[in-house]
Amino acid sequence: MPRMKYVSDNGALELLSTINPNSNVSVYVQLENLIHFGIASGKLKGKDRLPPARELAEKLDINMNTVSKAYRDLVVMGLLTTRRGLGVFINEGVEEQCKQFCRKTIVQHLYEAVSEGVTAGFSPDEIRGIVDKVFQTEPVPYGKPPASLEL
Amino acid sequence: MPRMKYVSDNGALELLSTINPNSNVSVYVQLENLIHFGIASGKLKGKDRLPPARELAEKLDINMNTVSKAYRDLVVMGLLTTRRGLGVFINEGVEEQCKQFCRKTIVQHLYEAVSEGVTAGFSPDEIRGIVDKVFQTEPVPYGKPPASLEL
Repeated sequence: MPRMKYVSDNGALELLSTINPNSNVSVYVQLENLIHFGIASGKLKGKDRLPPARELAEKLDINMNTVSKAYRDLVVMGLLTTRRGLGVFINEGVEEQCKQFCRKTIVQHLYEAVSEGVTAGFSPDEIRGIVDKVFQTEPVPYGKPPASLEL
Repeated sequence: MPRMKYVSDNGALELLSTINPNSNVSVYVQLENLIHFGIASGKLKGKDRLPPARELAEKLDINMNTVSKAYRDLVVMGLLTTRRGLGVFINEGVEEQCKQFCRKTIVQHLYEAVSEGVTAGFSPDEIRGIVDKVFQTEPVPYGKPPASLEL
């Protein structure tokens, strides 16, 4: 019997398709972060099945080992469970853990970016202006900022 | 005659001392960014001498090759000039180049951090709140965010 094709009945494939191999952030870190963000925001839920590593790798044109590494890390962190022959599933009851991870990650990154701006001599209003412009875009964390931001 | 000790008559040593070997950002990238920020903000100026790689490495407890790599990259970018026996100096007339680099870098990092927040389900007001709290701190781009931000 041929292996069952993954049918995207949740937002996982769409969410994970936003990775960017050209970002400075490692692809496996992007995948791990996006899965955390998806669970924290409620877009992904306990019992949701994730795309098989092989299919996701083909779809995104990345190495299957990269996907496997991210999934394995998240298994270790207690977020995912691999069921032999069935696939990779999100555990139930991990929302709070994900929210804490996201809070820590995002505070760290905002602190870094804003501090860089202040150190480079940007005024608070200039920085707030850039932040407000991001809200007007369709945010893709690891994508190239839209041209509207680069003025 | 012993080698002349570097005397900090500009803000370079203080600025570069804020690097953090535990950051996710490579130390040589931190050094390169901080020198760009310093020139863009006017804290460092053309003709300023930078600390010798060996002394900076000892002071910051990092590998001398890391400092050399950053200095060499910045020479290639046209920001620095090495004068044999005299040291490493900031070129004149590079402010505009540095400001453009900083704008691009900071827009990219703000876009990434804010997009991560939105994707994780943070509201614009939550994100603005974190940004405003950063302005109330002494910002150290690659440092650990102060506890006041982690609420």
